[in-house]
Amino acid sequence: MNNKNKTIPSILPGFMELLPKDQMLFNGLLDTIRQNYERFGFIPVDTPVMEKAEVLLAKAGGETEKQIYRFLKGDNDIALRFDLTVPLSRYVAEHKPDLKFPFRRYHIGKVYRGEKPQRGRFREFYQCDVDIIGNGSLEIIYDAEMPAIIYGTLSALGFKNFTVKINNRKILNGFFSSLGLESEQAANVLRIIDKLDKIGLPQVKEELTAIVNKPETVDLISEFIAIKGDNKTILDSLVKLGIKNDIFQTGVAELSQVLTYAADFGVPEENLAIDLTIARGLDYYTGTVYETNLNDYPQIGSICSGGRYDNLTEYYTDTPMPGVGVSIGLTRLFYQLREAGLIKPVGATPSQVVVIPLSPANLKSAITFTATLREAGINSETYLADVKTSKKFDYANDLGIRFAAIIGPDEEKQGTVAIKNLVTGEQNQATVAEAIELLKNKQN
Amino acid sequence: MNNKNKTIPSILPGFMELLPKDQMLFNGLLDTIRQNYERFGFIPVDTPVMEKAEVLLAKAGGETEKQIYRFLKGDNDIALRFDLTVPLSRYVAEHKPDLKFPFRRYHIGKVYRGEKPQRGRFREFYQCDVDIIGNGSLEIIYDAEMPAIIYGTLSALGFKNFTVKINNRKILNGFFSSLGLESEQAANVLRIIDKLDKIGLPQVKEELTAIVNKPETVDLISEFIAIKGDNKTILDSLVKLGIKNDIFQTGVAELSQVLTYAADFGVPEENLAIDLTIARGLDYYTGTVYETNLNDYPQIGSICSGGRYDNLTEYYTDTPMPGVGVSIGLTRLFYQLREAGLIKPVGATPSQVVVIPLSPANLKSAITFTATLREAGINSETYLADVKTSKKFDYANDLGIRFAAIIGPDEEKQGTVAIKNLVTGEQNQATVAEAIELLKNKQN
Repeated sequence: MNNKNKTIPSILPGFMELLPKDQMLFNGLLDTIRQNYERFGFIPVDTPVMEKAEVLLAKAGGETEKQIYRFLKGDNDIALRFDLTVPLSRYVAEHKPDLKFPFRRYHIGKVYRGEKPQRGRFREFYQCDVDIIGNGSLEIIYDAEMPAIIYGTLSALGFKNFTVKINNRKILNGFFSSLGLESEQAANVLRIIDKLDKIGLPQVKEELTAIVNKPETVDLISEFIAIKGDNKTILDSLVKLGIKNDIFQTGVAELSQVLTYAADFGVPEENLAIDLTIARGLDYYTGTVYETNLNDYPQIGSICSGGRYDNLTEYYTDTPMPGVGVSIGLTRLFYQLREAGLIKPVGATPSQVVVIPLSPANLKSAITFTATLREAGINSETYLADVKTSKKFDYANDLGIRFAAIIGPDEEKQGTVAIKNLVTGEQNQATVAEAIELLKNKQN
Repeated sequence: MNNKNKTIPSILPGFMELLPKDQMLFNGLLDTIRQNYERFGFIPVDTPVMEKAEVLLAKAGGETEKQIYRFLKGDNDIALRFDLTVPLSRYVAEHKPDLKFPFRRYHIGKVYRGEKPQRGRFREFYQCDVDIIGNGSLEIIYDAEMPAIIYGTLSALGFKNFTVKINNRKILNGFFSSLGLESEQAANVLRIIDKLDKIGLPQVKEELTAIVNKPETVDLISEFIAIKGDNKTILDSLVKLGIKNDIFQTGVAELSQVLTYAADFGVPEENLAIDLTIARGLDYYTGTVYETNLNDYPQIGSICSGGRYDNLTEYYTDTPMPGVGVSIGLTRLFYQLREAGLIKPVGATPSQVVVIPLSPANLKSAITFTATLREAGINSETYLADVKTSKKFDYANDLGIRFAAIIGPDEEKQGTVAIKNLVTGEQNQATVAEAIELLKNKQN
């Protein structure tokens, strides 16, 4: 075949594909998240990427449905999953008799949305979800584990200055209900409140006035969203509002309880803050909601969000299966952290050592030594091709491999290897046993 | 919503979805494979599940094409990957300037084939691939690493009595060519030879006679496939055939070299055997080919296969990029091992410990202790819901959690926890520090 008949090798627009250095970095983040989810006793689940469209879209509609990858194959109307939450609700409804409750599951996998490609948005992306699902009921105390998981996971990822923002939808719902706002109007009010950070209080008041007739209602809303202070102060202020609405009062009580237990779970006070303005969409969460911000990089937005939902499986079963969960959208987060220079690749291979024979005559010794290293659990490879020695070192340096083990005629004679630290340039002769000891201690 | 409007929660036919116990087992196998691929210095790569159809199908045709999941979305003609080899060839052709060669990559991911659903066949399945790709050329010695990777990985998975069967396509091609068989006829001969194990030599001879005119050719083929013995004996027999064909002789020389170096890489002789009848398809591999069988379970077929290919990227670039690789189809293998009772689930959760408060009064202590365990890296959870104590133990036993840490009023008074081994029933009082020590040592 000549060049004219070649297909240009390229991927679809809107997809992320990484080179080895970035892939190693990405996988490191994935591993850390997974280890932490398991540290908190969550069970791995893996569901098919494609499902029956009627099942996956039982609830969906509007914007989401337009983004779905959906197609026919034979008799099957197929859709690719667009999140991990709908597959979870299908999974627990389908397998309920075989699961133990509360069901603590995590799921790390790719999901698909045919969004318009734009900077930092991808059509295929990793979601890292943890959820706890109850059979019939789930006590509010489970909501207190989520800030602990977020805190533990983000700390393990190396973040320090971050805040888990917490709120309870019942507070908002009860408050709006006490003001006599109907659900559609409440939704509009929420949308305006949500812009507080961007447009400021005076502009918010103006927009509220445009849709709410009574000035005293606008004042009450403004007073509500102006509540500030540490968590205790905010809770006290909420009580002082004196709102006689059961839903509101339940919300305040739940929020208070969740904060108390989250502290017992080891979440430092400086990393957990009530934020009365967060609501996380409108028809999904029913109680506690979470968002998480890197305080030095507010433009990145929430990096871990979620909440409590009471009716997730209602499209599949009559048994109420309430749950609470949070999710990290890792593909987008990775992109943003890389752009902001907050994470940097280290190496482009898992190899810790490359074994270099100085000439083909030393190949057999080099291979045998590599086999011994691997046997000892040390990630390693032999440079097998017969090229100039300098090219072998270039290969190791380009991939960021930390050690070269060099075997030439002298080493063969003495039964040793020369271990060279490619970062410091330091080189030492070592017996096989010494080399293994040295390289084992220098791992990670 | 009442029952009549419910969607039945179920997945598409031909897909595998696991319950927690099996998922834990499956993930354990995946982890072992990954660790071993990294031990051999392979670099992780992750490519999009969907690609441009024209790119993915540049080579494909016939049976494969019919099985492809392909659809339009907006302007895009999209196909789901049906293996990890085509995406690899696209990846190296696309990113060649940014990669170091020989490029050692592994890829563990799901691929999609719309096959007719049948026992043990799945439409979504994990492939676990390792390949080494050269830029322009790749020395034959790299072929010797594959038996070592297979041996190391399968040993780590717990297999003992298995054989990596090895052959070289050049031996077959050269042999057929020396007999004057043309490619189509050679293909038919191969298909008959391939049935040797099933139908026996007399039947093979009969079928060969039906398509090959000369009885002496049938005799030569029969003599060839009857070659048996240890590797050295087979190589000697091949030389003794005295076939004057360059391709044949190159094949024999390559096979001999690969066997020598594989031994240096630490592959025991009893796990690596020449099998002159394996060919692995017809238009793909060009040199060494591998299959791997569990000797006690021949009906499972090859569990790790692959080979050398010289022209994989030819549809994308003029630079020859030869490679060698092997693959484990883990979904199918898992299914077969489970069916054969060769692997058994242990636990249904990563949790090592469940912390049980005897009453709500002990909840705070239980939570704080759990936080301490997690801080120490011990996978653990608190049983938070207020139910009968026996129900909490049932939960732990059902999930296969090995330890319960019980905190009641006595423990609170003494500042201890009761650590109960749920397997042996043994129970001991321990201080927090002692408990951590005990549980850390008992992990894994």
